[in-house]
Amino acid sequence: MSLLVSRLAVIGVGLIGGSFARALKVAGCVGSIVGVGRASEHLKRAKMLGVVDEISTDPAQAVSEADVVFVAVPMGAYEGVFAAVGSRLKADAVVTDAGSTKQHAIEVARRHLPDLSRFVPGHPIAGTERSGVDASFADLFVGRRCILTPLPETDKEAISLVKRLWIACGSEVECMSAREHDELLAAVSHLPHVAAYALVNAVGACGRKGKDPFRYAAGGFRDFTRIASSSPEMWRDIVMTNRQAVMGCIDAFKAEIGRIEEALAAEDAQRLLELFGAAKEARDRWLAREGLA
Amino acid sequence: MSLLVSRLAVIGVGLIGGSFARALKVAGCVGSIVGVGRASEHLKRAKMLGVVDEISTDPAQAVSEADVVFVAVPMGAYEGVFAAVGSRLKADAVVTDAGSTKQHAIEVARRHLPDLSRFVPGHPIAGTERSGVDASFADLFVGRRCILTPLPETDKEAISLVKRLWIACGSEVECMSAREHDELLAAVSHLPHVAAYALVNAVGACGRKGKDPFRYAAGGFRDFTRIASSSPEMWRDIVMTNRQAVMGCIDAFKAEIGRIEEALAAEDAQRLLELFGAAKEARDRWLAREGLA
Repeated sequence: MSLLVSRLAVIGVGLIGGSFARALKVAGCVGSIVGVGRASEHLKRAKMLGVVDEISTDPAQAVSEADVVFVAVPMGAYEGVFAAVGSRLKADAVVTDAGSTKQHAIEVARRHLPDLSRFVPGHPIAGTERSGVDASFADLFVGRRCILTPLPETDKEAISLVKRLWIACGSEVECMSAREHDELLAAVSHLPHVAAYALVNAVGACGRKGKDPFRYAAGGFRDFTRIASSSPEMWRDIVMTNRQAVMGCIDAFKAEIGRIEEALAAEDAQRLLELFGAAKEARDRWLAREGLA
Repeated sequence: MSLLVSRLAVIGVGLIGGSFARALKVAGCVGSIVGVGRASEHLKRAKMLGVVDEISTDPAQAVSEADVVFVAVPMGAYEGVFAAVGSRLKADAVVTDAGSTKQHAIEVARRHLPDLSRFVPGHPIAGTERSGVDASFADLFVGRRCILTPLPETDKEAISLVKRLWIACGSEVECMSAREHDELLAAVSHLPHVAAYALVNAVGACGRKGKDPFRYAAGGFRDFTRIASSSPEMWRDIVMTNRQAVMGCIDAFKAEIGRIEEALAAEDAQRLLELFGAAKEARDRWLAREGLA
């Protein structure tokens, strides 16, 4: 593939940042990559693994020569990163990111970037249980969706460049508004995390009077609650930066729980069957459509 | 191992009934096994696989010579099975079962068995995604807990026999009251199923206005909602026969969701971190304790 970017700065060389760097190296479409972070031990490891060519703990300095800046830090670190780099970007540098909540990313960028038209907000729908550069791999994004949420004022050329980078990573790129993104992800990602954390706490609460209920949990419970072992800090920041949409989804969830509760209270077996059956059907349809069945 | 049972009747030769039969054959502690069910095609398959020695579609006739009767049918079929066999059991036959809700199993047994003291209610905490005799295997219960919920009037000798059968299957046997069992399982098994069904329905509801949200779901969502693909009929019967305990757990779950909602509404990031962190800690502790981490 031909060169798309001479110099790329990756801020946050973890699972996402590291995999993006690896994929673009494999595709041969970047000249050099500088990895940026706070922990120099961690950066040295990234360099040793060949994920990045150079490393820096000074984001302002590191971005000053970059053509593209990829921000792959937790939502809670956005303010600090954008404040540090905003005034030090090259005049025509394109900034893009991988954050889970796009309206918040845009708010922060609006506060700190000199030229919002060169910011292309993005979110690859990919991840694994693991985190850190050691977990990163070049194929992480292959066949996965990447959502871009450009603003009306975003440069067409900047969008096109970021799109080509994600395509080089193997992603299917799709554009939508930041608001639509945040509402969709609140439903399929943020709500399930809230539900999993609440469920584990509820199971603990149910057992307070007697035996430890976790002792009697089986494989289904392990799968169901896996995401409750996700980083509390990361998820605090995600739901805090998407509060309205998450609260809307929690309302929808409570309404669905209420339907089951009403059917149980009324001993309405037929209604329960409809509610459970609808869920099974929706999930099985999704699996079939995605070829996961 | 020495012979524990001359003739065993297994009513319902699916994943659980089939695996129990296989395990006891491997252990060499049963003389002969008759498999009982409604679908003769299915029974023929069980015999062909060597899971059972004989087959019958007439439970009343099949149990008349059995020393032990193992009932492994869905909760919704209990009434019919116990009504059919109650008056045809051998005088000293031991009846045991594998049903998910024990108070209901005891109620049904009380209505139909001539001698409740020979009924040993049981519940192996094991299962897989799959069902049917083809999914059964001798090692299903190895290292898994099996809960027995005998009544004060249950024969000690009958309990001891059923215990030895489960130990022969590789299970760790534990006794508790039916009520305690039903409350614990409501928390770790029935509530998660209700939550998964409600969650899938809520995600569908969130998307009604625009794009299909399932399109943007990733691996975490697949794991989290796996149990929402479970049989709606089976789970209708389980929650209907454990209504009070399930409704209590739903209350506890709604309270936990309410805590997260309040923290979000108050923009209380510290409180969110505590709630998420408590759940992660409880789950990680459980995994470590069970050697699953």
